[in-house]
Amino acid sequence: MSLGCGHTIHQEHHHFGWDNAIPPRLAVAPGETVEFRTVDASGGQLTPQSTAAEIAGLDFGRVNPVTGPVFVEGAEPGDAIKITVLGYRPSGWGWTANIPGFGLLADQFPEPALHLWRYETDLSRPAAYGPGGRVPLRPFCGTIGLAPAEPGLHSVVPPRRVGGNMDIRDLAEGSELWLPVEVPGGLFSVGDTHAAQGDGEVCGTAIESPMDVALRFELEKGAGPAFPRFFLPQRGPDPRAALGWDVTTGVGPDLFAGARDAVGAMVELLSRREGLSAVEAYLLCSVAGDLRISEIVDQPNWVVSFYFPRAVLA
Amino acid sequence: MSLGCGHTIHQEHHHFGWDNAIPPRLAVAPGETVEFRTVDASGGQLTPQSTAAEIAGLDFGRVNPVTGPVFVEGAEPGDAIKITVLGYRPSGWGWTANIPGFGLLADQFPEPALHLWRYETDLSRPAAYGPGGRVPLRPFCGTIGLAPAEPGLHSVVPPRRVGGNMDIRDLAEGSELWLPVEVPGGLFSVGDTHAAQGDGEVCGTAIESPMDVALRFELEKGAGPAFPRFFLPQRGPDPRAALGWDVTTGVGPDLFAGARDAVGAMVELLSRREGLSAVEAYLLCSVAGDLRISEIVDQPNWVVSFYFPRAVLA
Repeated sequence: MSLGCGHTIHQEHHHFGWDNAIPPRLAVAPGETVEFRTVDASGGQLTPQSTAAEIAGLDFGRVNPVTGPVFVEGAEPGDAIKITVLGYRPSGWGWTANIPGFGLLADQFPEPALHLWRYETDLSRPAAYGPGGRVPLRPFCGTIGLAPAEPGLHSVVPPRRVGGNMDIRDLAEGSELWLPVEVPGGLFSVGDTHAAQGDGEVCGTAIESPMDVALRFELEKGAGPAFPRFFLPQRGPDPRAALGWDVTTGVGPDLFAGARDAVGAMVELLSRREGLSAVEAYLLCSVAGDLRISEIVDQPNWVVSFYFPRAVLA
Repeated sequence: MSLGCGHTIHQEHHHFGWDNAIPPRLAVAPGETVEFRTVDASGGQLTPQSTAAEIAGLDFGRVNPVTGPVFVEGAEPGDAIKITVLGYRPSGWGWTANIPGFGLLADQFPEPALHLWRYETDLSRPAAYGPGGRVPLRPFCGTIGLAPAEPGLHSVVPPRRVGGNMDIRDLAEGSELWLPVEVPGGLFSVGDTHAAQGDGEVCGTAIESPMDVALRFELEKGAGPAFPRFFLPQRGPDPRAALGWDVTTGVGPDLFAGARDAVGAMVELLSRREGLSAVEAYLLCSVAGDLRISEIVDQPNWVVSFYFPRAVLA
């Protein structure tokens, strides 16, 4: 299947971290399309044959490679580069891990865990998770961004105002993303493709799955937003909602603590009701559940909610 | 229209704040149903004829009255009281205000503002907001909870682990809520009914609208959750999604600051694109938009997103 782009950047053209001194691999005019072939978030260290034992030995210097950079002609600081997600060519395999020291409940889950996924590349069926789990698939780019103005090499892990590792699940096919340009040409790169994830990516990983992605670049002069912004088109009725949602909450003065409480409660609920182990439930929460701020104005306590779709375990 | 309950508590039976010494108005056995007639969040201080000038003079000692309490027979600390939302009888009017010093962007909106709403009581049409706005209606109880164990009078404003002013928009008809019991009988009260609100209630108020609500009480011995939990049944395709969503984000190490950035960006976007004043956009965000935590694991920065449905301003 061709993604029908005017250019292709192959996966060997990736880099680790953001640095505006990395020379561009390609220059495009506004309106042009590019197919990016990405490496998975482990940088190829994990394979469909990997085991949990390999998690402890991961070289973090090689995680989250991004393919690029692309120089968008005419882009200057203060402009917006608009990226339209045209489509994905999924690989059919992926992984989800609990990486010790990483994730919302890292203190509660000190041991490495790994789940390997196989799924239909046409996305016609949810991905199976043990005997009862069915995770709807909706590919997106976990890391998508521009080079920051500040010189030097910056870790790929934290997202920034120029985007990067934002892990926004709705950056799926058809979405349109506006990123603020800080350096000439913007210097766009993309990677960390996910086959599915819930809002929050609570265990620290999604269905990490190498795939190719087709993007169109446009330029809006002087329209750089303060932070990334995107448009999410209608996608029809959400199949995840077919059996409703279980929702847990955390209430208190700190949103982060509230999120931990909400997710911890869902892990406990799913473990108790569905017979999953705690870590199985934790990984499943990361790929199929949504963390929302329900309320942020009733001083001094806020409400953070975690939504889990019953259809996933029906 | 009857809500078909076994009991009714009238609106004069309300109280201000939570105090487990307030004597119950009614005792019910598990399985029984109660219709509650509520007072709006202003405690009747605002009417369909009010103006913004009245906001500055609001007596905060009279805000957010709750109707009750109800003693659920057999409920003891450690149990869960399950509340099923059977239905609402909306009044057809409501208000949304910017109250100085209150709300997510209180520093940016120091002046009082008031929007009065009229809507069809059968909810057959969205509520109009000026010439272009159409806000889908979905009534729910903003404040719903039990008395805390700690003696004395506690402000109604902050939600607690026993619930209260949680402002969770999905506590609509058909939802089931589990609250942890801290005192014998639970001592349930409800109020602060809303005709519509987005996740976050960002300006501090929703479509504040007096209405009657029918609830069923059940008891689950020893099943008290750490924090409130609820089940949201399927509601069919979300009409708000018909034209997709505009989404703004805030990126940084503090969720609260991220939420402010995201909402501020949407206010700016809607003001610029739709010709609303900033405060008009701010109020509309509160009743029609959703604040979500998109990402909370990529240290040290998190992503908070604000979703606004295009159908509201189509």
